[in-house]
Amino acid sequence: MKKNLLIIGAGGVAQVVAHKCAQHNDLMGDINIASRTLRKCEDIIASIGQKGSMKVPGVLKGHALDAQNVGATIELIRATKSQIVVNVGPAFVNMAVLSACLATGAAYVDTAIHEDPLKICETPPWYANYEWKRRDECEKAGLTAILGAGFDPGVVNAYAALAKAEYFDRIDSIDIIDINAGDHGRYFATNFDPEINFREFTGQVWSWQNNQWTSNKMFEVKKEWDMPVVGPRTTYMTGHDEIHSLSQNLGVPNIRFWMSFSERYVTVFTVLKNLGLLSEQPIKTAEGLEVVPLKVVKAVLPDPSSLAPDYTGKTCIGDLVKGVKDGKEREILFYNVSDHKAAYEEVGSQGISYTAGVPAAATAMLIATGEWDVRRMANIEDLPPRPFLDLLDKIGLPTQIRE
Amino acid sequence: MKKNLLIIGAGGVAQVVAHKCAQHNDLMGDINIASRTLRKCEDIIASIGQKGSMKVPGVLKGHALDAQNVGATIELIRATKSQIVVNVGPAFVNMAVLSACLATGAAYVDTAIHEDPLKICETPPWYANYEWKRRDECEKAGLTAILGAGFDPGVVNAYAALAKAEYFDRIDSIDIIDINAGDHGRYFATNFDPEINFREFTGQVWSWQNNQWTSNKMFEVKKEWDMPVVGPRTTYMTGHDEIHSLSQNLGVPNIRFWMSFSERYVTVFTVLKNLGLLSEQPIKTAEGLEVVPLKVVKAVLPDPSSLAPDYTGKTCIGDLVKGVKDGKEREILFYNVSDHKAAYEEVGSQGISYTAGVPAAATAMLIATGEWDVRRMANIEDLPPRPFLDLLDKIGLPTQIRE
Repeated sequence: MKKNLLIIGAGGVAQVVAHKCAQHNDLMGDINIASRTLRKCEDIIASIGQKGSMKVPGVLKGHALDAQNVGATIELIRATKSQIVVNVGPAFVNMAVLSACLATGAAYVDTAIHEDPLKICETPPWYANYEWKRRDECEKAGLTAILGAGFDPGVVNAYAALAKAEYFDRIDSIDIIDINAGDHGRYFATNFDPEINFREFTGQVWSWQNNQWTSNKMFEVKKEWDMPVVGPRTTYMTGHDEIHSLSQNLGVPNIRFWMSFSERYVTVFTVLKNLGLLSEQPIKTAEGLEVVPLKVVKAVLPDPSSLAPDYTGKTCIGDLVKGVKDGKEREILFYNVSDHKAAYEEVGSQGISYTAGVPAAATAMLIATGEWDVRRMANIEDLPPRPFLDLLDKIGLPTQIRE
Repeated sequence: MKKNLLIIGAGGVAQVVAHKCAQHNDLMGDINIASRTLRKCEDIIASIGQKGSMKVPGVLKGHALDAQNVGATIELIRATKSQIVVNVGPAFVNMAVLSACLATGAAYVDTAIHEDPLKICETPPWYANYEWKRRDECEKAGLTAILGAGFDPGVVNAYAALAKAEYFDRIDSIDIIDINAGDHGRYFATNFDPEINFREFTGQVWSWQNNQWTSNKMFEVKKEWDMPVVGPRTTYMTGHDEIHSLSQNLGVPNIRFWMSFSERYVTVFTVLKNLGLLSEQPIKTAEGLEVVPLKVVKAVLPDPSSLAPDYTGKTCIGDLVKGVKDGKEREILFYNVSDHKAAYEEVGSQGISYTAGVPAAATAMLIATGEWDVRRMANIEDLPPRPFLDLLDKIGLPTQIRE
């Protein structure tokens, strides 16, 4: 039976999820898109029409919704008879949307860990602060709730699960490496909401090393990786969602996350942070105007969605896994290469949104087919990786393996 | 006869002028300080009391004044019977204060060229845009109006006049070099009002080369100078007031200005400028708040006056003059070295304010003694340099000469 879908959020990732689900709406039923700003939903619907993305005729509709309002979300889920909710709104709404799913029985999917707007960088493991506290609730309700179903977290968790299931007897380390070798042609821009982007890097960097949490400062640990297609790139050790679940679920002693940053990014970030311009605390100008510096920075930066048309180059994201198989040391890189321009031509978004949105769409499809309709809360590594990676091979994010 | 003094402005430079005039108030009469914020005048008066700077007993009084209001300034000049006005307020008020002086006959002294708040970087020569249009008015009224009487412009103009009068038959080039080798210990701070500071560098860089105006971008032309005491330092060619008068008054084909910038300054300035955070045009945040980015930057930066107590190191500012004397090529450096800490101990301000304020005080004293009471509008190079430089030798800014 086809299942109706509700997408929450109408940014770049939502646009990809909507396009991909439309391309495969023989598996899905109605597609609904909800955002605080109805116009943004309608823009996505127009772009789906323009690209002729709907595989078979079907309902495609936009809705205005404040997803912090659990009652309103419950009402919309019921009104649209949605059975799957893909939450790609700001990470602040996750717990509210999960509550609405629990109240209605609609399956829940997200792509990023829940955040409290007032707290930056909570104690690890981050999932234990909000999501995992509600595991029992999901179990009892028989609710499918799949967490972190983007690329990283998401596909990289599936790579880790695949490595453990099929390629290694013992894993010693997993280095997740996220390289964006794309060029948007601007002096400086963030690939998604600057407010969320900067928040990722203003706290401590947590990594899992020798079976314990290790804390560093941002841009403290630097490493060059030579990845396929994109070549040698400078990365920095960064805190990231998937470390917080993989460390608890896989029994691997070392799990680290590395993200590429251009020199320009590091310079701009460092200046803004040191001057206090990334602060979320309001300040007063000499004229007495109260203003949050980070919101002013956001206002002067390019709108991330405006970058897509000019974005060129590729991304390469993957897991370098080291361990032992049949008594022999082994080292395997599981990875995907995506292209910004190809993503834009297919779905109207740049590659960063594409790699996050396609896996979320795939997760919705696997819930619809029943393969991942597990009726409990799960991180991606808790689920069988093959159906997911096989589907991604077909719908735009093929896995490559280099030994 | 002792002449009453009115100081307009109550920032770091005003503090120096007040202290220096107090130290020599046997030449001056009453000392009045006027600023929009009365408390700032009173702070200066308290600091003069604390350091016991008054040479002989006398009147020392603060006044609240909006110096854009010509009528109010006229009234204050009359009420205080001031015969000399030293204008060290923001450069936006110069023309208003000059009008008040013309109406009352009080001599006028300033340290920086007039600026229109809405215009950045006007056409050269800058003095012709405002000041020199009022030369005839001053001439007719017999009003002494001495322009640009700080260090640069100011003392460096006197160095140039001295070089021409006594050391050269023909001058081929004057390079004015301004090195601040001081350290305030902060990640980043400007030495005076960030709004005024950044404005200096957001427009074109005008220089006088081969007898014509040459335009460059800021930080486009870089040069290392090895100056006495401070040693080799990186400087950038910068537009500056004194080029605009010296080029018209001296008949020298090449006049350039070089200012030292730390790598940190260049980085921070470049980032802020490129992001649009130095803009004076209001923008709107996502929440609909209208705000001028430059005013937010100003609000997060340290208050320049807070730097003085921790400021260490020296400044070296001078003119490198090249030309011919008695048929032989000659190259002479006229310069002064000042110390931030010594300035703070003497007058409670850092070295940048000290070097700007002492010459303005000296100018007031020379008007009081009659030596520079020329009853017309003059730039410093129009006046005999010896009395000025001799006085500065005695009161804190000794000239050194290296051939």
